[in-house]
Amino acid sequence: MPTSFALSDVFLAEVDQRLRAFVDRQRPLISGPELNPLLEAAEDFLSGGKRLRPAFCYWGWRGAGGGDDPAIFTAAASLELLQASALIHDDVMDASDLRRGRPAAHRRFQALHEESGWQGSAEQFGEGAAVLLGSLLLVWSSEMWRTSGLPAASLAAAERVHDQMRTELMCGQYLDLLEQAHGGGTFESALRVALHKSGKYSVEQPLRLGLLLAARAEEPWIDRLCVDYGQKVGIAFQLRDDVLGVFGDPVETGKPAGDDLREGKRTMLIARALSEATPRQAADVRLLLGDPKLEEDGVRRLREIIEETGALAASEEMIKRYLDDALACLESAPITAEAREALRELAIAATSRRS
Amino acid sequence: MPTSFALSDVFLAEVDQRLRAFVDRQRPLISGPELNPLLEAAEDFLSGGKRLRPAFCYWGWRGAGGGDDPAIFTAAASLELLQASALIHDDVMDASDLRRGRPAAHRRFQALHEESGWQGSAEQFGEGAAVLLGSLLLVWSSEMWRTSGLPAASLAAAERVHDQMRTELMCGQYLDLLEQAHGGGTFESALRVALHKSGKYSVEQPLRLGLLLAARAEEPWIDRLCVDYGQKVGIAFQLRDDVLGVFGDPVETGKPAGDDLREGKRTMLIARALSEATPRQAADVRLLLGDPKLEEDGVRRLREIIEETGALAASEEMIKRYLDDALACLESAPITAEAREALRELAIAATSRRS
Repeated sequence: MPTSFALSDVFLAEVDQRLRAFVDRQRPLISGPELNPLLEAAEDFLSGGKRLRPAFCYWGWRGAGGGDDPAIFTAAASLELLQASALIHDDVMDASDLRRGRPAAHRRFQALHEESGWQGSAEQFGEGAAVLLGSLLLVWSSEMWRTSGLPAASLAAAERVHDQMRTELMCGQYLDLLEQAHGGGTFESALRVALHKSGKYSVEQPLRLGLLLAARAEEPWIDRLCVDYGQKVGIAFQLRDDVLGVFGDPVETGKPAGDDLREGKRTMLIARALSEATPRQAADVRLLLGDPKLEEDGVRRLREIIEETGALAASEEMIKRYLDDALACLESAPITAEAREALRELAIAATSRRS
Repeated sequence: MPTSFALSDVFLAEVDQRLRAFVDRQRPLISGPELNPLLEAAEDFLSGGKRLRPAFCYWGWRGAGGGDDPAIFTAAASLELLQASALIHDDVMDASDLRRGRPAAHRRFQALHEESGWQGSAEQFGEGAAVLLGSLLLVWSSEMWRTSGLPAASLAAAERVHDQMRTELMCGQYLDLLEQAHGGGTFESALRVALHKSGKYSVEQPLRLGLLLAARAEEPWIDRLCVDYGQKVGIAFQLRDDVLGVFGDPVETGKPAGDDLREGKRTMLIARALSEATPRQAADVRLLLGDPKLEEDGVRRLREIIEETGALAASEEMIKRYLDDALACLESAPITAEAREALRELAIAATSRRS
C-alpha cells in the first residue's frame, strides 16, 4: 500500500506495541502450558494486518483536533482486535484454509490436535478452539477500547456508535451468509451487503469513532464526512477486495489465486458478471463458481467471463467514481490540513490495486 | 427448582422484562425481514433459562446493602445474554441437536435454510448463523451491563471483574475442549475445568459483581464470601450438572437421556468412574462413551458402571459436602439477613436433584 504519512512506521509501531502490551496484560489470566496455544494464536494473528481501521480512527481524532495522546493509539488499536475476531470466525464459517498466507486459526488448532495425537475429531476441535479465540478477541476489543485511558467524556460521546458498530458487524456478516445462500443475488443486494458488512465497519464507523472521541459530540459535519467520504471509501474498498479475491496475486493477498471463486462468494463483481452474461457464460459460472476443487483452468475461465462481460471494467470504474466522490467531500470538511492529507492517502491506499 | 423467595415471580418477571426491553432497543439496527430470524432466535433463546446468574448478582447487590434500584435488574439480566452466547457457541462446538427441549440455534438456522430451499450446505449455514448469533449476544451482554443505568462509581468498581469473567469463560471453555481431547483425564483435571468453566462464571463472579456494584470497593470479606461460598456452590452446581447429564429426566433437562454420554463428556463423574472401574468396566466405558449413536441399552450399561464403581454416590456425597461448607461460610458473612436467606436458597436450588 503506497502510503508513508497516514500509515507511517511510527504509527504502525505504536499500534503493534499497544496490541502486544494489551495481550501481555491478559497473561496472568491465561497461564499454564495448556492455554499457551490460545495466547500464541492471538499474538500471531495480531502481528499481521494493514491497520487500516486504527488509521481511520486515529486520523478522525486528529482531524477533529485531537492531539498526540498515547491513549488514542490504544483505543484505535482495539479495532484490530474486533477485525481479528471477525476474520477468525469468518474463516470458520467459510471453511477457509489460509489467512494472510498462513493456516487459518481453525486449521492451526486442528494441526495442534493432530500433532498431539489427541482423541476425537481434530477438525471439530479446531473449529471449536477458533470460535473461542474469536470470542476472546471480541471481548478483548471492547475491554481495550474502554481501558485505553481516554477521558470519560470522549468515551461517552463515542459509546453509542461503538456499540452500534459491533451489532452492525454481526448483522452484516449474517446478511453475507444469506447472500451466499440466496445465490442469484442482484448487484443491488450485493451492494447492500458490502455496505453493511464492510463499508460501515471498515471505514465509516472507525472514522466516526475517532471524530467523536475528539469532538465529544455528534455534529452535522461529522455525520456528513462519515457518510459522504466514509461510506464511499468503504464500498470502494469492498469492490477492490472483490477484484483482488478473483484477480489478486496470492503473494499479496495471502490467499490462493481465485479463492473467492472456489468459495462461491456472491460479490458485486459476480452479480454484475451474471447480469451481463450470455446463456453460455451464465451456465459456465453456475457450473464452476463455488466448486471447492476448482483448478487453474476453471479459475481462468471465470476470470475470462468476468472480463468479457465488462464486470471487471465496471468495478474499476465504480471504484474510481466512489473514490473521486469521497476525495471531493474531503475538501470541504472542517478538519485539520494534516488529517485531510492523511485521509486522502488512506482512501487511495484502501482502494489501490495492490492489497 | 424449589425456591420462591430468591427466584420469586417478581424477580423472574423483572429479568424477563429487562431482556425484552433491551432486545427491543436493538430492533432499529436489525430491521428488515432478512434479519428477523436472528432477532427471533435471540428472543426465543432468552425466554428460557433458570436466571441463576442474575439471581446471584442481584442478591450479592442486596447483600452488600444495595436497594431495589431498577438498574440492578438490568445489569443482572445482562448475565443471561453472556450465558446464552456461551450455550449457543457450545452447542455448535459439541454439535448438539437440542437445547432446553428445542432445536439448538445452529439446527434452527439449518432448518430455515432447508425450508427455504437455499443454495449451499444447510449445515454450514446453520453453524455460521449460530456463531454470529452467539457473538451478537456476547456483544450485547456488555452493552446491556454498561447501559444499565447503575452509577458510574458502581460500574467502575466492578469493571475489572466483569472483564476478567469474560476472559475466564473463554479460557474455561477452551480447557473443556482440551479435556475432551485429552481423553483419559483425572478427577483433578476435570475438577479444574469445572472450576474454570462453570464454577467461576456461574456463581462466584456473578455474586462478586453484585457485591462490588453495591460496596463499590474490593474488600476482604467480599473475596472470602465469593471464594468460600461462591466457588463451592459453583463446583457443586457443576457436579449436579454432570449427574443430570447422565441420569437426568429428559423432560426436565431438555436434552435426550444420557446426552453427555453420547457426546463423550469427560466430567468429574466419568473420571471417578474410570479410576474405580474393573478392567471389564473400563473396556465397556471406552467402547460406549462418546458413541454418537449410543442406544438405550448402552446408556443403561454406562449408568450401571457409574453406579457400581461408586462414582454416583461419591458425586452425591461431594455435592452435599460442598453445599454444607458453602452454607456454613454464609453464616459468618456480613450481609443482610434477607440476602443470606436468598443465597442459602439459591445454593440449594442450584445443586438440587431437580434441574
